[in-house]
Amino acid sequence: MEYPSKLIENAVLEISRLPGIGKKTAFRLVMHLLRTEESASVSLSDAIIKLRTETRYCNKCGMVSEDTLCKYCSSAKRDHSLICLVEDIPDVIAIENTAQFQGVYHILGGLISPVNGIGPDDLRIKELFDRIDSKTNAVKEVILALSPTMEGDTTSFYLNKKLSEKGIEVSTIARGVPLGGELEYADELTLGRSIVTRTKYD
Amino acid sequence: MEYPSKLIENAVLEISRLPGIGKKTAFRLVMHLLRTEESASVSLSDAIIKLRTETRYCNKCGMVSEDTLCKYCSSAKRDHSLICLVEDIPDVIAIENTAQFQGVYHILGGLISPVNGIGPDDLRIKELFDRIDSKTNAVKEVILALSPTMEGDTTSFYLNKKLSEKGIEVSTIARGVPLGGELEYADELTLGRSIVTRTKYD
Repeated sequence: MEYPSKLIENAVLEISRLPGIGKKTAFRLVMHLLRTEESASVSLSDAIIKLRTETRYCNKCGMVSEDTLCKYCSSAKRDHSLICLVEDIPDVIAIENTAQFQGVYHILGGLISPVNGIGPDDLRIKELFDRIDSKTNAVKEVILALSPTMEGDTTSFYLNKKLSEKGIEVSTIARGVPLGGELEYADELTLGRSIVTRTKYD
Repeated sequence: MEYPSKLIENAVLEISRLPGIGKKTAFRLVMHLLRTEESASVSLSDAIIKLRTETRYCNKCGMVSEDTLCKYCSSAKRDHSLICLVEDIPDVIAIENTAQFQGVYHILGGLISPVNGIGPDDLRIKELFDRIDSKTNAVKEVILALSPTMEGDTTSFYLNKKLSEKGIEVSTIARGVPLGGELEYADELTLGRSIVTRTKYD
């Protein structure tokens, strides 16, 4: 596709670098920006640059934060002896939306993946053990809330070993048939595991 | 959905203002920008603001241009007596891609639409007649290449009347069964019209 000007070509190129946006969609967005008032493009451009250059991260858990400590790590109402370990920021938001967790978080920033060359040193594992070693808020339990994938399981396995050595109680979020799901449509692996790891009826 | 920071919330809001992008997709894009290197966000932000503030339009046809005249209006190889009238910039690109047209363009910037309160004065119709009236490049024919919709037909009808009064030859792009299309799957309206407006076999 030939673009009518260098400015349009450059904007299409930059926008189509975003995940899930191809050149056709990018061009459609460019045309939209050209048709709407200038202030819309100014606000959009401004929001993007500020997002990346001004966003700060919590010194403790690595969550996006307005301050040196995030709202969870600085809250007196939270149980600081209970850490929920997650891969990334959206996981924290998802867990917060359940309103079922009153502890604090720790963001790994990825998962161990030998295929992609990501080892324990590339993740925020050292920061986790620094938190555990500093005795200010004695950590009792770490909940491993990682995705049930090959990488997630590898990371959980590695961390369970390391944390147990420190005498920390380690748990993992329950896996089984989703609530509201029809049993006959559950995949074999999940259903099989839900039978093996059945819990006492109460 | 609760966002972890004002910067993220603002970026999600601005990005989700784009057509076809909801809040969930916008949040996914925000997370992508936070995960990639800063230079990517800087280039994206820069491309958007430059697109809107520095894009210039051809004084004659209204096409996006790097100069006061676009590459078509300033070309000596083009037939300046033949104007193809289109609704917007993407139409010019689409027609250029066919490599079948050697005249020049005129962009209306919309279509007459009484429902949306868009009348002839809101479009670049005056500019079209200024081009016709200035005798520098005597315009012989205007091709109406507007969408075959209610608005497109209304606009074509109006312009045909006005242009004919000026003694300009007016034509419209052919409508019929698309090339490579199966006859049995063509819609009734198009197929019916293709019979009524049949052309001599040659």
